[in-house]
Amino acid sequence: MGDTSRIKNVARRVVEQYRQGNQMVVVVSAMGDSTDDLIALSRQITDNPSPREMDMLLSTGERVSSALLAMAIKSLGVEVISLTGRQAGIKTDMVYSKARIIDVDNDRLRAELANSRVIIVAGFQGLNEYGDVTTLGRGGSDTTAVVLAASLHADLCEIYTDVDGVYTTDPRVVPEACKLDTITYDEMLELAHLGAAVLHPRSVECAKHYGIPLHVRSSFNDNPGTIVKEETDLEISMVITGVTYTKNVAKLAVFGVPDQPGVAYQIFKKLADNNISVDMIVQSAMRDGINDISFTVTQDDLHKSLETVEETIKEVGAQGYTYNADVAMVSVVGAGMNSNPGVAAMMFGALAEENINIHMISTSDIKISCIVKNSDAEQAVKALHKKFALDKIDQN
Amino acid sequence: MGDTSRIKNVARRVVEQYRQGNQMVVVVSAMGDSTDDLIALSRQITDNPSPREMDMLLSTGERVSSALLAMAIKSLGVEVISLTGRQAGIKTDMVYSKARIIDVDNDRLRAELANSRVIIVAGFQGLNEYGDVTTLGRGGSDTTAVVLAASLHADLCEIYTDVDGVYTTDPRVVPEACKLDTITYDEMLELAHLGAAVLHPRSVECAKHYGIPLHVRSSFNDNPGTIVKEETDLEISMVITGVTYTKNVAKLAVFGVPDQPGVAYQIFKKLADNNISVDMIVQSAMRDGINDISFTVTQDDLHKSLETVEETIKEVGAQGYTYNADVAMVSVVGAGMNSNPGVAAMMFGALAEENINIHMISTSDIKISCIVKNSDAEQAVKALHKKFALDKIDQN
Repeated sequence: MGDTSRIKNVARRVVEQYRQGNQMVVVVSAMGDSTDDLIALSRQITDNPSPREMDMLLSTGERVSSALLAMAIKSLGVEVISLTGRQAGIKTDMVYSKARIIDVDNDRLRAELANSRVIIVAGFQGLNEYGDVTTLGRGGSDTTAVVLAASLHADLCEIYTDVDGVYTTDPRVVPEACKLDTITYDEMLELAHLGAAVLHPRSVECAKHYGIPLHVRSSFNDNPGTIVKEETDLEISMVITGVTYTKNVAKLAVFGVPDQPGVAYQIFKKLADNNISVDMIVQSAMRDGINDISFTVTQDDLHKSLETVEETIKEVGAQGYTYNADVAMVSVVGAGMNSNPGVAAMMFGALAEENINIHMISTSDIKISCIVKNSDAEQAVKALHKKFALDKIDQN
Repeated sequence: MGDTSRIKNVARRVVEQYRQGNQMVVVVSAMGDSTDDLIALSRQITDNPSPREMDMLLSTGERVSSALLAMAIKSLGVEVISLTGRQAGIKTDMVYSKARIIDVDNDRLRAELANSRVIIVAGFQGLNEYGDVTTLGRGGSDTTAVVLAASLHADLCEIYTDVDGVYTTDPRVVPEACKLDTITYDEMLELAHLGAAVLHPRSVECAKHYGIPLHVRSSFNDNPGTIVKEETDLEISMVITGVTYTKNVAKLAVFGVPDQPGVAYQIFKKLADNNISVDMIVQSAMRDGINDISFTVTQDDLHKSLETVEETIKEVGAQGYTYNADVAMVSVVGAGMNSNPGVAAMMFGALAEENINIHMISTSDIKISCIVKNSDAEQAVKALHKKFALDKIDQN
């Protein structure tokens, strides 16, 4: 939701679809900068606001846009009603600011749909068992949409965003990047986790769990976007679906870790206790009864991570640690790589051709990630996109 | 609620009072221009928004200020919780945008007070039996405070406003105007109805009904304000408590109205059906089997009123009508005038001395109102304030 002209535009599209005979539940996010404005207000009051009060504050943003969108739709002659998270029956756990949806009581939703009304739901929010407002944290509005689609057994969940769909890589880096017609949930999950900001992994996980197809498309135009679903329609599944990257990552390596059960647990438990999110974790093969464990964190968390690691290495009896504060993760993703053992080699080869040094490697069934110098990231993405011929894909 | 610095200021005062051992429920209004900003947003969408959606939209303003005030109080080290109208148990009728409170379920309020928490309630809003948010219309936040005070059997309800209290008249017109230490509910009601903008009549009516003393005081300083209660403490009740006026009023007179039952009903029913609020109504004594009925409306409603009256006079068989689009109502108010038959004469005399012509007169037990030329209003107020020696009152 941008400004009121964008709201009117969304209203027109909703009305069009409604008039084609669709029952519709529309989940909205807050308008433009309104969430940031509310956060700025709270900062004027205190640096350390109560999470409960923060949720009370922030949940108003989606209410405003839901009411405005309902007004806009109504003015086009269609019956419509806005519902808060509570009214939409969204019940969450007690964790303020990043609550998880535990149940949906969809009685009211069903009743309003039965009245042929379009329903606008304020996203990103629910009610906990105290009757207090909670917000769902990052990806909350998309997740609301997916959960409601699942609860109502919707045919499709459309996610309107500011891009046309899911691309083989970031078009700002590689102008030849292609929009994908379809992608599997798992591929989307890998892409989402890797910083392709189109969809939060949480909403994709949820869609996968309930088998709800997602249609990721632009709120600015009527172009078809990308369908996220279990199996793609491609006759021959593409080996690589996309190339993605996350810049400004920090890498830590703890070396000389005793090869005993529970040591990795101790390291990462302590990091988790300090609220440090660890991304890639790599443990090299044992050598002389000791291991090296490397992992990546955000640059913001580096300082806290170093303190934590310093404590831990004493406790676990590791020899020491190193870090690099300025690296990037570059990944290729594709469900087809499973059956194509040459993908990793192709990737490393492409990076070598560009003289890009690889600091760390991690692979999963559908993804290969390399840690490289931050300043090499874009060049790596371009090289990989070209190497895997993603600029020449034919999705018929 | 002005800006965040004013919120911090309110927080300090709340904490001071809390530390003196008071249990406190604080009802907040929206910040500064935020309600106007929300209305402006809705206007960008449609000129004719659904009242239900408008309530959803506008109720966010008080939620924002309640959350911010709670954060500010918490940062001063006091346990506090913000509650929406719903969470405070405020149940209203179904009339969006001007709902009336029909019940308060104060379980949550009592529980939070029992936890020694300060409670911040988002004013101006409640929940109807559909579970939808309603707003209470003008005076809604003050009324919320009074109703909660009644429900919780509070000792006192303080109303923080931008003036120091209730004055004998508008200090902008009469610099000698005195702040009143006390005033009765009825006097306050007359003053409020007459445009003294300190308290909405609705909240005063409610306080009177439940016998809740109100303390009207400034949110900018710690000066004692004005106590509104059943009986004043003055040993000898003042004859006149205040002088007030409403400018920009329009006067209509329907003349030659047949003296039959139901005619006045027909006239004012039709005005009411057209949503025209009539203020003063005067019917002169019958003469030759016909009556003249005069009344006042706001200047905004004049055009619609004239159309309505034109229709009605044909139906009821009146002879015609006149109007004056530019008059003002000047009133003296005081519970003591009941036993002082000379008050009316004094009032008319004071106006005559200033050569101010009186167009209409209406009296109640505690009020005498005169309609005068708009341009005479301030002069009339000054003369009356002086005549009744309101600049010399001694409240011991």
